[in-house]
Amino acid sequence: MSSPRIGVWFIGARGGVAATATLGLLALQKGLTDSVGLVSSLPQFASVDLVPWQSFVVGGHEIRSGSLSESLSRLHTESHVFDAALVDACQSELAAADSRIRGGTLANCGPTIGSLACPNMQKFSHESHAETIDRLQNDLRGFQTATDVERVVVVNVASTEPSDENLRLSDRWNDFDARLKDGSLKSLPASSLYAIAALDLGMPFINFTPSLGANPAAIQELAETRGTCHAGQDGKTGETLLKSVLAPMFAARNLQVLSWVGHNIFGNLDGLVLDDPANKASKVKTKDQLVKSILGYDPQTLVSIEYIRSLGDWKTAWDHIHFKGFLGTPMTLQLTWQGCDSLLAAPLVLDLVRFVELARRKNEVGVLSQLGSFFKRPLGLAEHDFSRQFSLLCHWAEQHSK
Amino acid sequence: MSSPRIGVWFIGARGGVAATATLGLLALQKGLTDSVGLVSSLPQFASVDLVPWQSFVVGGHEIRSGSLSESLSRLHTESHVFDAALVDACQSELAAADSRIRGGTLANCGPTIGSLACPNMQKFSHESHAETIDRLQNDLRGFQTATDVERVVVVNVASTEPSDENLRLSDRWNDFDARLKDGSLKSLPASSLYAIAALDLGMPFINFTPSLGANPAAIQELAETRGTCHAGQDGKTGETLLKSVLAPMFAARNLQVLSWVGHNIFGNLDGLVLDDPANKASKVKTKDQLVKSILGYDPQTLVSIEYIRSLGDWKTAWDHIHFKGFLGTPMTLQLTWQGCDSLLAAPLVLDLVRFVELARRKNEVGVLSQLGSFFKRPLGLAEHDFSRQFSLLCHWAEQHSK
Amino acid sequence: MSSPRIGVWFIGARGGVAATATLGLLALQKGLTDSVGLVSSLPQFASVDLVPWQSFVVGGHEIRSGSLSESLSRLHTESHVFDAALVDACQSELAAADSRIRGGTLANCGPTIGSLACPNMQKFSHESHAETIDRLQNDLRGFQTATDVERVVVVNVASTEPSDENLRLSDRWNDFDARLKDGSLKSLPASSLYAIAALDLGMPFINFTPSLGANPAAIQELAETRGTCHAGQDGKTGETLLKSVLAPMFAARNLQVLSWVGHNIFGNLDGLVLDDPANKASKVKTKDQLVKSILGYDPQTLVSIEYIRSLGDWKTAWDHIHFKGFLGTPMTLQLTWQGCDSLLAAPLVLDLVRFVELARRKNEVGVLSQLGSFFKRPLGLAEHDFSRQFSLLCHWAEQHSK
Amino acid sequence: MSSPRIGVWFIGARGGVAATATLGLLALQKGLTDSVGLVSSLPQFASVDLVPWQSFVVGGHEIRSGSLSESLSRLHTESHVFDAALVDACQSELAAADSRIRGGTLANCGPTIGSLACPNMQKFSHESHAETIDRLQNDLRGFQTATDVERVVVVNVASTEPSDENLRLSDRWNDFDARLKDGSLKSLPASSLYAIAALDLGMPFINFTPSLGANPAAIQELAETRGTCHAGQDGKTGETLLKSVLAPMFAARNLQVLSWVGHNIFGNLDGLVLDDPANKASKVKTKDQLVKSILGYDPQTLVSIEYIRSLGDWKTAWDHIHFKGFLGTPMTLQLTWQGCDSLLAAPLVLDLVRFVELARRKNEVGVLSQLGSFFKRPLGLAEHDFSRQFSLLCHWAEQHSK
Repeated sequence: MSSPRIGVWFIGARGGVAATATLGLLALQKGLTDSVGLVSSLPQFASVDLVPWQSFVVGGHEIRSGSLSESLSRLHTESHVFDAALVDACQSELAAADSRIRGGTLANCGPTIGSLACPNMQKFSHESHAETIDRLQNDLRGFQTATDVERVVVVNVASTEPSDENLRLSDRWNDFDARLKDGSLKSLPASSLYAIAALDLGMPFINFTPSLGANPAAIQELAETRGTCHAGQDGKTGETLLKSVLAPMFAARNLQVLSWVGHNIFGNLDGLVLDDPANKASKVKTKDQLVKSILGYDPQTLVSIEYIRSLGDWKTAWDHIHFKGFLGTPMTLQLTWQGCDSLLAAPLVLDLVRFVELARRKNEVGVLSQLGSFFKRPLGLAEHDFSRQFSLLCHWAEQHSK
Repeated sequence: MSSPRIGVWFIGARGGVAATATLGLLALQKGLTDSVGLVSSLPQFASVDLVPWQSFVVGGHEIRSGSLSESLSRLHTESHVFDAALVDACQSELAAADSRIRGGTLANCGPTIGSLACPNMQKFSHESHAETIDRLQNDLRGFQTATDVERVVVVNVASTEPSDENLRLSDRWNDFDARLKDGSLKSLPASSLYAIAALDLGMPFINFTPSLGANPAAIQELAETRGTCHAGQDGKTGETLLKSVLAPMFAARNLQVLSWVGHNIFGNLDGLVLDDPANKASKVKTKDQLVKSILGYDPQTLVSIEYIRSLGDWKTAWDHIHFKGFLGTPMTLQLTWQGCDSLLAAPLVLDLVRFVELARRKNEVGVLSQLGSFFKRPLGLAEHDFSRQFSLLCHWAEQHSK
Repeated sequence: MSSPRIGVWFIGARGGVAATATLGLLALQKGLTDSVGLVSSLPQFASVDLVPWQSFVVGGHEIRSGSLSESLSRLHTESHVFDAALVDACQSELAAADSRIRGGTLANCGPTIGSLACPNMQKFSHESHAETIDRLQNDLRGFQTATDVERVVVVNVASTEPSDENLRLSDRWNDFDARLKDGSLKSLPASSLYAIAALDLGMPFINFTPSLGANPAAIQELAETRGTCHAGQDGKTGETLLKSVLAPMFAARNLQVLSWVGHNIFGNLDGLVLDDPANKASKVKTKDQLVKSILGYDPQTLVSIEYIRSLGDWKTAWDHIHFKGFLGTPMTLQLTWQGCDSLLAAPLVLDLVRFVELARRKNEVGVLSQLGSFFKRPLGLAEHDFSRQFSLLCHWAEQHSK
Repeated sequence: MSSPRIGVWFIGARGGVAATATLGLLALQKGLTDSVGLVSSLPQFASVDLVPWQSFVVGGHEIRSGSLSESLSRLHTESHVFDAALVDACQSELAAADSRIRGGTLANCGPTIGSLACPNMQKFSHESHAETIDRLQNDLRGFQTATDVERVVVVNVASTEPSDENLRLSDRWNDFDARLKDGSLKSLPASSLYAIAALDLGMPFINFTPSLGANPAAIQELAETRGTCHAGQDGKTGETLLKSVLAPMFAARNLQVLSWVGHNIFGNLDGLVLDDPANKASKVKTKDQLVKSILGYDPQTLVSIEYIRSLGDWKTAWDHIHFKGFLGTPMTLQLTWQGCDSLLAAPLVLDLVRFVELARRKNEVGVLSQLGSFFKRPLGLAEHDFSRQFSLLCHWAEQHSK
């Protein structure tokens, strides 16, 4: 009722995660689904001053053609998820959300993401970074005006960009901005342009991907200067989540991990992008550091991610953990995780939007480290133990009762 | 040096766990092994006023014939554990420990445990409960005198007894004791007789098994009356340990567990005893409650334990967790645990002895709920989340710095 | 075209297997599915004189109420199988098949199957065996007349009956028949009554279940006397199929199997029936003999089947095979099978109908041992090695080219 | 007794496989082990005219320093295999075998294998191919003379060489030989030099590795010219063995394999060599072709082999097989294989020596295709179905009764 209307702006708005999050939001608004999978719906957060699902309106940027309905149909056909009736019941709202999606940017996304782009994206190919940011900001402001939302939360759920090891950036926003304006800074990836566009407008930014986004110190300074907040990096949905509860167990029992091997296979569009070694490198990096950080020593680790078309959105991970027990005895834990990626990620994205909206409303500024439990590589937080990360979230939320 | 000498008294002193714990203790005293697997050796406890490994002397009760050396040899041959050189290096100390082992009691242990007993046990078969307790106490006092230890910690690591569903006991020690003395109480299991013998002498008692032990209210009252402490029940070594870190993860992510199936197979003597349905019932009960307790609702659960001779001490567990994610999507986590039971249990037993010794020395009385992280069914603690249980231990230990 | 029309009569016509087979048959007739999963569609059988899918008309016996459409809907909702569009496209044909289903018999089916029966079944509760057989034969003849089919193949795909260990039957049909007629034989299970009804009319009978069916010698004599054929027992769809290819591998490599543990979990109606220990005993028996038969020695084996509601039709099996290699080294193979039971069974049922129809047409009499590759416990065949069983089928088929 | 003495010459004589085979042979000769793991000891071959284990004498080529005893000790310590008592009982015979090991060749073995070589190998670094072959032949003749064996069987069990995609060789031995003699052929890998040395002397050659060996047409012609025989390539010990029984099962049931992923991890020296991408390529190639060949179509396949130090000789493989059943239903089979590589390979090597010795004695010439069941990539045989391959072996053996 009196609750403010809030905009959610997805980067990668027709991708599997955004499409599923959009469908899920509509299903929640229509009372067609329960709250399973939604962290912010847990009893622990029942008295927290979170905006209700009814308040949200969706828009976004996208580089592909197609429609939300087609993305969902693809997930249904290839991955055997969603009740067809649920999608049907939301068709008109999905079409409305689709009409609020604008062309994004392909800046330094690499050839694999580039090959997915719709022909229309051509017209932006000669933009300078400054021009791109301008255009993206126009889209964001237009969305806020058209939907009359009080606040917009921007979430990056686009495919993983290649990481540029040679990228050297100024740590100060002033220098950074000057180089943007004089056109000498040309190598920023799209994710950072989106982050700058949002944060410069005071809109909070969530980086659910391994891409660079708001990581550079200068962009973090921008967020603080504009009095807004951001969170990241790379949603912790499956195998890494397991690592963040199992590694602390081995540590607490003084069982020495000898090696930890994790093989991931899946077949969605995200997987196809990760099949490009340049894009994959970013991903593996965020997945591989956690075990060492929790254990405090350096066992041999291996993380692979491979594109297996037939699996569709079903991320299947096999982890083999070899550990040493008392008197030098080697033992083994193996696990197989069969989770549907979009359906694991989408509710976390919606939760993050709610929590970040609260933080923004309460005028929190800079990195939101209390949201570390949602991320593989939590910005602003050295803690990787999931249980402790989750305690931080609960503790923070307790301070914001209705 | 100036550190007091402490006695460790094992019930089931020649079983796999006690034999391994005895060997491990000797190996630690001789500097032949590192501290892997020992919780009390973690950095978190480095400044806690724990007694060093050098201080401990081992004795115990046993109902089988044989020797510690034979038990270890059996583990080596059947389960391919231990370096033969390690056992060789400890032979004389093992023989000394063997000489401190006395005949236990078979009271209400059921036919399966009874069939393992050595002929000598016959001579105790007509004892009343009161006579048995007297005899056990004589053994404990004799051990303390002969070894000149300051304090004795009693640990039950014997095979699981059948549980007697019809056992109705008085909740007050006075009534209970009166019935012991007049001979009308005849149905106490051995584990409770051991507990009474120890606690009545002021010696702390640790119940590492699913057996009844010190659980009855009257026996707990005895502990308090005598100013001593106790802890239990049923060491959390493998599959249940995993449940106690994974179930909280599902809870914190609001992923609804639909069913949790756990099949355990192993082939040691403990497994042979559990092959008797009466004995198994006790075990399954302590393994099966935890998931529901952590989740706060009641998914279908199944726990099986089966004796597969060829596996020896290698407890292999397959868990299949079926859970529902966002928009009703069913997903699956499977895990296989291949752990050597005795080598997982033995260090925890040694850790418990150290922690309980500290509590006794600091005059803590009654149930030691801070030790809940060690047990499948923690006495005095409703919390089953391993991470929180471990925090309790760390918090308590911090208060007892050297 | 000129191909004769053939009737398929399902015992348990609205169960998961029969409903799926009926749907599949319709989908094949309408060209809505490909031939994946159908053995008889393999290139090896392309020139064999098998009747085309177009020729078949479905009817059957059932003891439950409901409809084929409801059975399929239950599978779709609970087990996430079938494209809804496929079921929709076949609704009128499904309704027609439904109209050809008659009330079966509950004779000696036990209370668990009995509890599933529709109230209408009451009216048959006082029938003698002879009266039941008469009634069932009327149904079969009526179906043949009404649909004008040249031949009827009867297939038992009903839930597993309890096995009666004390059942003592005459080995000669004359004696058997006399006792049926004088009413002194009262303890035959339903599956045998169905078999007698069919075989006595010269109709071939396929027993796809672990139930008794045509196993008794006297009933086999009846088949021979009437010049018809039969095949069984218990369709080999998943875990046992794997055993029948893996056990020969261990044998051929002289790797000694120490133990073979198989835990099966699933949640369909069949599973609910098997949750009754009396019914389960029949099933476990047919699953557990194969390993020993192939290996030629007797390793410890364990087979469990447990009803886990949430899994629906998804039979999940974990097998743990412990084996000894060169110089006494123990090694391990584990496997997890996640197969949808109805969709594994249904095509085999359709294949069996085609192969049995051919055998009947060619006037083969008695047990069809060449169909052993389809069964866990192949009647008339001591060979359990799948590869050799399949060679028998191929060899037989070669003799019946078009 | 009257049985002829036979020489076994291992290429890679101190590697894990050869050291284990040598130990195993000694254990068989001394009656210290049973025949588990030995194919040639199966009842099927009881009446075949195979040379008894007593007849064999071991020698070989090696490029590393160390001793057989050290190799076995390393396996014992790192991989927890072998009873120490068994190795002790064979020490003097092992030393004798060690004294019969000569320096091999590093020709075109690549830097990873080169880095393992002992300094003594330096002295051979300037040899031409012709000189190397001469030297190797001197070693072989010297062994035959010194041990007075009737026949020598040469077996390559060295680490996998890199494969040279650009290697273009003449198909005729005359041209090939001419280029060897004039020194213009310089790029042959060591495995081919060993093959030429053996075959040219009329000694049969077994290639148990993925290396090139006797594959070139000209070398095969040499074998035929010299009236000797050879067999290969790449021993089928674990994951690929499983594929060769499971793929035929999917084919026979018309279940369409959508993808077959196999991840292999292990930590022995062979694994270290395979950690070099150039060497790994040879291996993956022989592992990856089989599934397509058996199925007759081309599902997506993935094979990875990774070096995980802590696993030692324990090859652990996870296979994920995604397949389509009736009505388009995707299903899954997963398996985990935990096998000790040397102990799986060694008995097969001994079996091959026996079978090849028989073939040589019976004057069989050229490729021995009847031995295809032993190899991942069977020379001279298009059949990959293990069951059929094994039938070929049995059929051949039947023709050679004592």
